[in-house]
Formats: sequence, C-alpha cells, structure tokens
Amino acid sequence: MPDNTTNSARPSGRAADQLRPVSIQRHYTRHAEGSVLVAFGDTQVLCTASIEEKVPPFLRGKGEGWVTAEYGMLPRATGTRTQREAARGGQGGRTMEIQRLIGRSLRACIDRQALGERTITLDCDVLQADGGTRTAAITGAYVALVDAIRWLKSRNLIKRDPIFGAVAAVSVGIYQGVPVLDLDYAEDSACDTDMNVVMNDGGGFIELQGTAEGHAFRREELDALLALAGKGVAELCNLQREALARAA
Amino acid sequence: MPDNTTNSARPSGRAADQLRPVSIQRHYTRHAEGSVLVAFGDTQVLCTASIEEKVPPFLRGKGEGWVTAEYGMLPRATGTRTQREAARGGQGGRTMEIQRLIGRSLRACIDRQALGERTITLDCDVLQADGGTRTAAITGAYVALVDAIRWLKSRNLIKRDPIFGAVAAVSVGIYQGVPVLDLDYAEDSACDTDMNVVMNDGGGFIELQGTAEGHAFRREELDALLALAGKGVAELCNLQREALARAA
Amino acid sequence: MPDNTTNSARPSGRAADQLRPVSIQRHYTRHAEGSVLVAFGDTQVLCTASIEEKVPPFLRGKGEGWVTAEYGMLPRATGTRTQREAARGGQGGRTMEIQRLIGRSLRACIDRQALGERTITLDCDVLQADGGTRTAAITGAYVALVDAIRWLKSRNLIKRDPIFGAVAAVSVGIYQGVPVLDLDYAEDSACDTDMNVVMNDGGGFIELQGTAEGHAFRREELDALLALAGKGVAELCNLQREALARAA
Amino acid sequence: MPDNTTNSARPSGRAADQLRPVSIQRHYTRHAEGSVLVAFGDTQVLCTASIEEKVPPFLRGKGEGWVTAEYGMLPRATGTRTQREAARGGQGGRTMEIQRLIGRSLRACIDRQALGERTITLDCDVLQADGGTRTAAITGAYVALVDAIRWLKSRNLIKRDPIFGAVAAVSVGIYQGVPVLDLDYAEDSACDTDMNVVMNDGGGFIELQGTAEGHAFRREELDALLALAGKGVAELCNLQREALARAA
Amino acid sequence: MPDNTTNSARPSGRAADQLRPVSIQRHYTRHAEGSVLVAFGDTQVLCTASIEEKVPPFLRGKGEGWVTAEYGMLPRATGTRTQREAARGGQGGRTMEIQRLIGRSLRACIDRQALGERTITLDCDVLQADGGTRTAAITGAYVALVDAIRWLKSRNLIKRDPIFGAVAAVSVGIYQGVPVLDLDYAEDSACDTDMNVVMNDGGGFIELQGTAEGHAFRREELDALLALAGKGVAELCNLQREALARAA
Amino acid sequence: MPDNTTNSARPSGRAADQLRPVSIQRHYTRHAEGSVLVAFGDTQVLCTASIEEKVPPFLRGKGEGWVTAEYGMLPRATGTRTQREAARGGQGGRTMEIQRLIGRSLRACIDRQALGERTITLDCDVLQADGGTRTAAITGAYVALVDAIRWLKSRNLIKRDPIFGAVAAVSVGIYQGVPVLDLDYAEDSACDTDMNVVMNDGGGFIELQGTAEGHAFRREELDALLALAGKGVAELCNLQREALARAA
Repeated sequence: MPDNTTNSARPSGRAADQLRPVSIQRHYTRHAEGSVLVAFGDTQVLCTASIEEKVPPFLRGKGEGWVTAEYGMLPRATGTRTQREAARGGQGGRTMEIQRLIGRSLRACIDRQALGERTITLDCDVLQADGGTRTAAITGAYVALVDAIRWLKSRNLIKRDPIFGAVAAVSVGIYQGVPVLDLDYAEDSACDTDMNVVMNDGGGFIELQGTAEGHAFRREELDALLALAGKGVAELCNLQREALARAA
Repeated sequence: MPDNTTNSARPSGRAADQLRPVSIQRHYTRHAEGSVLVAFGDTQVLCTASIEEKVPPFLRGKGEGWVTAEYGMLPRATGTRTQREAARGGQGGRTMEIQRLIGRSLRACIDRQALGERTITLDCDVLQADGGTRTAAITGAYVALVDAIRWLKSRNLIKRDPIFGAVAAVSVGIYQGVPVLDLDYAEDSACDTDMNVVMNDGGGFIELQGTAEGHAFRREELDALLALAGKGVAELCNLQREALARAA
Repeated sequence: MPDNTTNSARPSGRAADQLRPVSIQRHYTRHAEGSVLVAFGDTQVLCTASIEEKVPPFLRGKGEGWVTAEYGMLPRATGTRTQREAARGGQGGRTMEIQRLIGRSLRACIDRQALGERTITLDCDVLQADGGTRTAAITGAYVALVDAIRWLKSRNLIKRDPIFGAVAAVSVGIYQGVPVLDLDYAEDSACDTDMNVVMNDGGGFIELQGTAEGHAFRREELDALLALAGKGVAELCNLQREALARAA
Repeated sequence: MPDNTTNSARPSGRAADQLRPVSIQRHYTRHAEGSVLVAFGDTQVLCTASIEEKVPPFLRGKGEGWVTAEYGMLPRATGTRTQREAARGGQGGRTMEIQRLIGRSLRACIDRQALGERTITLDCDVLQADGGTRTAAITGAYVALVDAIRWLKSRNLIKRDPIFGAVAAVSVGIYQGVPVLDLDYAEDSACDTDMNVVMNDGGGFIELQGTAEGHAFRREELDALLALAGKGVAELCNLQREALARAA
Repeated sequence: MPDNTTNSARPSGRAADQLRPVSIQRHYTRHAEGSVLVAFGDTQVLCTASIEEKVPPFLRGKGEGWVTAEYGMLPRATGTRTQREAARGGQGGRTMEIQRLIGRSLRACIDRQALGERTITLDCDVLQADGGTRTAAITGAYVALVDAIRWLKSRNLIKRDPIFGAVAAVSVGIYQGVPVLDLDYAEDSACDTDMNVVMNDGGGFIELQGTAEGHAFRREELDALLALAGKGVAELCNLQREALARAA
Repeated sequence: MPDNTTNSARPSGRAADQLRPVSIQRHYTRHAEGSVLVAFGDTQVLCTASIEEKVPPFLRGKGEGWVTAEYGMLPRATGTRTQREAARGGQGGRTMEIQRLIGRSLRACIDRQALGERTITLDCDVLQADGGTRTAAITGAYVALVDAIRWLKSRNLIKRDPIFGAVAAVSVGIYQGVPVLDLDYAEDSACDTDMNVVMNDGGGFIELQGTAEGHAFRREELDALLALAGKGVAELCNLQREALARAA
C-alpha cells in the first residue's frame, strides 16, 4: 500500500489513484462455457458466458455472430433489499442502461465474422454491491468471454481467434474536490462527478459515460479523471492477463 | 461411506440412503441480516434473510410479523442457459410454486407474534443447479432466518425467540426401481417418482409434495420414501445445528 | 348417510369419512369436445377439454401428444369478490400452482404416443367455490378428457385408446384434531393440516401435496389421512364411471 | 312461433323480428349479491353483481356511488378455443370495449347519489357463446343489479331506490339484405351491418353502436334496424320484469 | 360565419350546425408514405400511413391486404398531464376502443384484394386535444391513406385503385337541450348525449356510436343528430377533396 | 456558411464544425406550461413541460422539487415504422436510457429547493427523426422548462428563480476519419465514434456519453470531439437565449 494513504481523504484510506483489491476467479460455476467471479473490493459480480448456436433475427444468414449482455442484482446485494425485477414484472431503466453498456463494450473487442453464426450471452449478476458494479462486470465479463472463446477453439468450432485486444472498465470521480479512482459506494453516493470509462489494453476509449451530479465539471477536471482511468484500466488489464494465464 | 456404495446403481455411486456432501456457509455476503451459501453437492443456493420494519397490508396493526420467500435461478445455473425471468417480464409457474413452498415451510417454525410487526424475506437464488434446488433452499434459508433472528435479538428488538424447532428439506424418489435419497439432476430427470419432503427436527411433516412422473406409486413405495426422507432431514438438521454453532 | 353424522364435529354435520354430495354433469356446454360441470357440494367447476391438432414446440415431430390444463376462478365465485386475473395483468402464483397440478395429474393416465401429435387442453373454471376446487377440477377434468378421447375415437382419429386407468382427487385434513375427508371452505380455513391427494383407480398415488398450516403432522396422522383419501378417491372413481356410462 | 318462420331465410328458421328463446335465471350462484344466468338461445352469460363499500379514487368523499362492469369469456365458450386473457397477460381491445359498454349502459339507470359511496361491479362471464354476448350480458346484468339493490334495501343500507327504469340490449343487423333481430353467430359472422342497441323501458336510447362490415348502410336501413331493436328491447324488458317478479 | 352565431348558446359562439375551423395539411412529416396534420379547431392529430409488405397471420397467402390503426395521445395534449401509456405498461381501454374504430372505419373504403398482400397502418397521434380526437383522426387518416395509395400507384405496385368512396367522421351531441355539431371539449364534458358518426361521401353510415351520458335520448333527438352529422360529414368530405387536389 | 463546406465529405455538404439549421418554436401547443418544438435539421421534437403540485415519494416533505423527463418516438418518425411502445407493453432500453439522460441533464440547472415541492415533467416526443433526437430534446426541453418556471413566477408561486445557467446538448462523432459536429442519421449510422455532450452555458460538462462503434478512439480524437461540442453547445445556448427573448 503506498505511503500517501495515511493522509488520504477517502473513506477507505486508499490513495486517490489506487484501485480496491481486485480478484478474478475463473471457473466459478461449472455449467457455463466461461464463468468468472470478479471482485472490486466488496463488489462481487458473477459473470458467465453462454454460447448458443443461433443469432438474433437481424443477423440470420449473414455469417456473423453476436455478443450481448444481461445484468441483474440479487435483491439483497445492496444495503437495503431491492425489489426483485422478475417479481416487479420487468427490468428497470438502470438495468437496461447497464446491460446495454456491457454488451457494447464487449462487442468492441470481438471480430463477429470470426465468431461465426453463434451468440455469446454475458450474464453479469451482482452478488454483493459496493459501487462500481458495471465496471467490475465489464472487467470480469471480458475474462469469461475469453474462456468461452477458448472453449470453442478447443473443440475446433472456430478457425481464427475473434478476440482482438482486451477490454476493462473503471469508475472515476471527483470526491470532496479530489479526482479519485474506482469509487466505492461511500464515495459514489457523495461525489460530484462520476464517470465510467471503458478502455482497451492499447489505451483507446471504448465508452465514456460521465455525469455531473453536483456542479458541471471543467475541462481540467475531465483531463485528470481520464488520466486516472487510463492508469486504472492498465492495471486491470494486467490482472485479467494474469488470471487468464493461470491454469484452469 | 457405507459399504453398499460399491454396488450402487446411482450415477454418483452414492448409497441409496446417502446425501450428497452438504455445506452450509454463513455470512456469505455482508449486507443481509442472514446470508447463507448452501450446497447439496453441485447445487449451490445463496439464501439471504432481509428484515424490513413493515408487514403486508393484510397484517397491518395486528401485532404479527410475516416471513416470505422469493426464488430465482441465475440464467446459467443450468446446463443450457435459461431465459432471465426479469427479461421475460415476470416469474413463471415453477418459480412461484417453489417460492410459495419455501415461504410456507419457514413460516411453520416461526411464532409470528413473537416476531413483531416486521417482515423477513428469504431470497433464495440458485447460483448452480444440479437437482434439489428447492430442498437446498429451504435448508439454507432456515439458517439465514436464524441468523436474522439473532441479529434482532442482539439489538434487543425482540423479547422472546420466535423460532421453534428447525426446518429442513430433502428430495426422495424411485430411481430404476430403488427408493433413493437426495436426487441429483441425473437421477431427477430419469426417475419415476419424485417427492420433496419438508420436516422439522422433531420428525414432524411440514410439506409433502410427491409426483409420479412415470407410474403411480404404491403405498409401500411411499413408506420407503418417507423413511429415507426422515433419515435425510435428521442429518440435515444436525448440519444446520453445527453451522449455527460455529462462531460467525 | 351413516349414523355417526349425528355426533360429528364438522360444520356440515358430515361424518369424518364422508364426501360432500358429488355430481358430474357431462355435455354441459356444447362447443368443447368434452364439457363437464362437476360439483363437490357447493364447489362447482366447469371443466372443458379442447383438442387442437398441434403440440408445443418441445414435442414437435416426436409423434407424441400433450395434455395440459388451465385454471381460473370467476371473480365472484368466492365470498368476497376476487380481482380478475386478466385485469390484473397475469395469473398469480396460486393459479399457476393449481393448473400445473391438474396438468401433471391428467398426464399420468394418458399414453401420449397413442394420443398422437395433438394437444388436449383442460380448462377448469370455478363458477362457485366452497373449498376443494382443485380436487373437483381434477375429478371433473378426467371425465372431460375421456369424452374428448371418445370424440377422437368416434371420428377414427386415433387407433388405440390412450387412456389407462382413471384419475380422481380429494382433499383431506385434520380439523379440530380429527382427520376428515373432502374439506369444505369452513373446514379448510380453520384446519391445521391440509392435503390434496391425486390417485388412480388402482389405488396408486399420482400426486400428494400436504401442508401443515398449524403444527407439523406426525406419521400416524399422515397414515390416517392417506387412508381417508384412498376411500374418497375410490368413491369418486365410481361416480366418474357411472357418469361415463350414462348416455350422452 | 309465428307463421312466417316457415319461409324465413334465417339459419335458425326464426322470423326476422323474432328473438331467440330467452331465459333469465336468478340466484344462479350463491355468494354474489346478485347472480343471474341469462341465455339468448345458445349464448349463456353468468352475470354477478358484487357490492363493495368503497368507490374509485376520483369519487372519494363525493357521496356518490359507482357501477362498473368486467367481461370475460371462458376459453372454450367458443367453437375453437380462445386463449385465456389472464394467461396472455391482459385484456384485449374487444374485451375492454365490451366491458366499458356494459358499465356505461348500467350507469344510465342508476342514481349514483341514492346508491351512496359504494361500488357495484357487474361481472359478465360468457359460459357459451353463439353471438350477442354483450347484449345478453347487459340484459342479464340489469337483473343482477336490481337484485343487489334489493339486497341493500333489505338491510336498510340505502334509503331510496337508486334504480330508475330498466335497461336491456339487443343486436340487429342486415342479413342477406333483410333487417333481422337478435343475430346468432351464424348470422353475425355473415352479415353486412351489425348494430347493438341499448335502450330503456321507456323506449329511450342509451347506447347505439352500429358497424357496416360490408357496404355502408343507408338511412332507411337504419330506421328499419332501430324499429326492430325497439321491439326486441320491449320484449326483453318484459322478460326482465317477469324474472324479477318471481320469488327468489 | 353565419348570422345565427350571435345568439348561439355554444361556448365557442358557433352556430349549432357549424364545424370548427378545419385544416388538413398533407406531407407534414417526411418519412411516412402518407402524413397528414388534421385540425378540428384546437384538436390536432398527426395521421401517418405506413406501408409494409406483409399481412397479419390470419391473411397470409390469401392475396388480400390489411388496413389497421393505432391511436395515441401525447401526455400533455390534454389540460392536465395524462400518464404515458408506454410507461404504464400498455394501452388502456379507451385507446383500444378508438383505434379499433379508426381501423374499421378506414377498412370500409378499401378493396383489400386490390391492395394486395400488404398492410397499411394508420398511426393517429394527438398533439393537442380539444374534443373530437377520434373523428378528426378518421377524417385525417383517410387523407393519409389516399396519399399512401398514390405512393403505391406512382411506383406501379398496384394495378387498380383500392379506394372506393371517402370516409369522414364528426361528433354530434345534445348540449343544453340543443343538438349541435362537432363538440369541443367544453361541450363534450357537459353534454347529455354524444354520438360519433362515420359516414362515406355517398351519405351512407359506416359507424354510429351514440352514448346517453345523462338521460336516454329519444328517437326525434336521434334524427336531429343524424341530420347534423350528415351535414358535417359532407362538408368534411369536401375539405378532404380540396386537400387531396392540392399539389403535394 | 464557411468556405470549407464546398469540399466537405459530409453527406449534407456541411462543414465539419457546422450545426444543422436549428429552430426553437415556443408555445407550440396550448395546454402545457412550457411547449417547444425544436428542430435540428429534419429532427423535430416536441418538448412540453408540465407542472404538478406533488413530488415522488422519496422527496415528500423535504421541501424540494423534482424535474424528470419522458421520451417517446412516434411510430413513423423513422424511415421504417417502429412498433409503438404502448402496444408492445412497455418502454424499451433505448427509451429508458434517453429519458434518464434528459432528466439528469435538466436537473443539473435547477435549484430544487427554490422550485418547491412540485414536479416538472419534460415530455420529449419525436415527431420526425434524422439523428440527434436526444440532443435536440435536451436543448428544447431546457426552453420549455424556462417557460414553465416563468409561468410559476408570473403567478407568484415561487419566490426565487430556480434556474441557474442554461443547458444544451449536441452530438459529435468521427465520420470517415474526420471529427464532425451534430451528426444526422446518414452520418450517425456510418460513423465510428459517436458522443453526446451535454454542457452548460459556462462551458462546464454535465453529461458525456461516448461510444466507439468501430475502433476505440484515441485521446487526441476525444480532444477534437470535445472542442467541436463546446463550439456547438455555445451556439445552441445563443439560440436558446434568442428564443427566450422573443415575445411569447
């Protein structure tokens, strides 16, 4: 842990540019072609990749595959119980927004022609929430996706690797006037500006979603946030690489 | 392991009267007042107990509490992906049937007046399925419920213990002509008769749900099944007791 | 009426092992291939069997048929008006549980290959409720199913009879400490233990669904209830046989 | 039966101005405050009137009551099975249109201030359909409404009679060029123009809903249809009166 | 404006038989094959006709086309905000009733065989409401339908003109005892009897929907209303003709 | 128009940094407290602001107001007909995502305490779509919001002005390798990177939503896009100011 945590203003005592402890556990459940439990501190998301030999109607007969995502939160992943969406009769706006983001992010590292006419669905279910569930989900879903592709390759179902580059995501924000990396719930609920940044391992941007909850943020604040995000994603990509290098 | 496993016809090699390895892990997630990961072999269910200081409309002002349950299955808990109920627009018949069973079973060991005007919701979410998800859910939810009651007691929110007795459940069935205990998926999908039995630690019956999938079962078969269930529930109650005796 | 009714504790004055007056009226409405109004005392259920020359997707091309059921209750079948499920936007958990039970029960007496690739839907709509609607529905639906099969046979649409055995159902319960047969609403809402038993005419069990509403029931209570149910189902099977022997 | 039926072109052999046999059976089920089985030939509708001591939000505190209606059709009321609306997830456009019509029609004969702050819901469920279900429903619901009002009066819950006049309805149409009264299904599905006419016993019009399915209808055709409707409603009002005069 | 407006009792000062100012603006939006903004005074409805080269299942392979309609109201088309139906989870009864009326009315002037196997959907969305939205919608949708047919003809997609006659609609009612034409909101909400009349340009009736909100209306009142409607529709048909004669 | 349009690669011939013709028409419909038709080229959105004297449950009794938004698209606003969300049974993910964005954006310029316990709902309905509907909606909704606030001030319902700053939005993207401002549909559907930028009139960022549809975008591309957005929003804020300065 770096020295500067001692005088950090962050509730967790982390340095401004410090990620929470991250763990990426592969083969967490046994049925899915890829199954990853990712933790960003107390945020825990189970990401499974499921392969189906069909594509949505708009892609039929085009020789391309599809990658999509669904997101859910167990009712008591949160501090107070959240009503189950299945019981309420449908997915809410926040859920839809997040799962669309995850899907777009992962499609950004897939050559859909190399994938062939099949669909990979990334189910990201939050077992425990402490801020940053969508960025943890993207970071874990990438690893599950790679495992699913390996499953296809090991059965000679695809000829060339459809994955190009890696994708990871992190949140950044301005907390009590200071730009900080990887907000936990205590920071997230109190911060002025919150941005989710999805990047690839080459430092390119895939998705940027910034929101000024309090005052509008200035250009120099944006620059500081983007620099933090770049550092965080680079670390996350290293952790993904290490996880994928471990024997199954 | 008993001798008779060597010539068992069960796919798992278990003896006819042998449970799968059972584990009951308390405090699995941190927000819920009770949080238990229960495993019956490869079946894993996360059971959380959430306390809310309100009751459903039909109980308001009566000085009684309520215990209810909701059940869900992660889309890839199963061998092939199951559509997410939230995305389909509602809970299906099987889900409703199971969550109603869990709720009734747990209400059978609660003095609702001693609980006071509050609701405890038991969310049982299947992370991995291999047969017997509802019986694992009931067995684990009981432990989560006890932890939630302890949470209330430790804060002096209740005066007397509303729990009387313990509740556990197990499936039994006739597989290839032989009555067996605690069916896994391979047995469940091939067996003629399947019964879920919920009992208390005094050997009393709380719920019996038996279905003849193939031929109707005779009275002597029923007797054999009930004896197996009695043995299995007694073992499960011991495992619950041990889990609850461990330091948090 | 047996002698022991005089000192019965049942609200209706019935003996403990006495069914309510049962009537089974065939050809009640004219469009359905089978149409039966069944009454268990004041409980009246209209059961129609509708034949459609198609099967659900999971059975297409397999040369087998399907039997399924739907259950409904008219809004004022009950003492106070129940909201119409179509107006509420969907079927509730109780309805789904019951219609799944009816479907499974009737499939237990059908050779689906002999039926051929067609579906018979049993619609059980409660016109008036006084306890035991699901057991009356199963008992009546069996007769409607037989009439639908006769319709097919009379048109030479099937070669061999797909029906084997008869199926009927009755509720039993422990009311004021005494095991009793065929609960009416007054008993049902006050009893400790309630069991619905579906059996065939050979005395085999098809479905058992027992619930301890108050205290858990002991093995000897279960035995007494099963004996009552066996007696009741045997009488119901006789009444089905008589109804089916009457000219249309 | 009048002489002219012999050379009638109607499938049923009825005279052009002849109603089907009409029966109005009161107290058909026992829970509802009013319960009427009305039959227009083979069309059978069970109409129940349920009293609730509350009004919809827009009427609260205004000292007025409300009368509303719901309509449903049992799945096999029709020649081929119709999907159950509760299973489909909601009421369709035709159902909503009909139940709104029934509600408006019955409100036309009620003094809502005399009714007091309570709601009467008229549930009209079609047990068997052969054309004219909405007109039979209105005609029967009126009788059920009167019985519900008598129920209130017999308990001294209302001071003055809120019913003014009687309401009945009949369909008329042009079948093979001839204006005819009370269309059955064979006529309804083949006719050019179809009109449902709701009138009171003073000959006043309450609702007129005419549709030219084939060619637009001319003014003289409209006049002929209105004359037939007036005759039919007058007869129906007599039948209502007779039914209401019978001892319960 | 005619002389008799000076002593009119109508809130707008209009004569009893006077339409509001009507405007019919074609090509209002650019994507639809027909797009008409119709105004009846302050009531403004955008009517678009969309052609799709497919028909509903019940018409497939029959060589006939289909014309259907959908109706909507922007949330703030009304004096107080109305909840958005998409946000409420479905279309209400009033919406369904109206869109079914529009669809039937427009189908009355189309030779569906000449149209060929394609569907024309008329979307009628109320931008501003001041009474008479459904009659304005029908009147405008007819013009949009003709434009869509012209679009097909100009591309040689149809051989003969499927349109026969013109269709327009107007409301009539009895306001303060006087039969009046084309009710605005002030009149509509206060009038005793309200009728929507859809007619063709030959004076034939296509739909009649009359409702007695207060007292039942007598035959002579009906006659007066029908005469007013005939006059109004004739004027509207002239305005449609003029609009259709203008260069696009 | 700048010189460089002549050799522009944009389908519209616009310069890379050129907005489409923008019009902001106030008082477009008469019922809403604010009603604005905004056009960005062929994209036309009707934005109404509706005031209600109540707040959502989570704000009750806190002395604060709320600003929220709903978004819709008329079925034929688009090149091919889009199914009506009300008919499909609910709002889709894209709609929810957009209306949440609009709501957050407008809340960024409102002092909710100064607004008092009332809700302003901004309904943004797309009459015609040609790319950029959400940015046009935000830009127009701001003007409708100001008009609604003026309505409150003119009635002395609020003491101090709750509006601080102005809010407008524009899209930017990389089209054929060139960063361009205010994408129309032709550009939007073909571009690699697409960003929606919401800013205030002080140049502060309120929302940033960038998506790499093709390759990930680099930091220098992001900088170019943000510069374009800043220029565009400044121009839009001038147009808002001019519109608000015009007499009603």
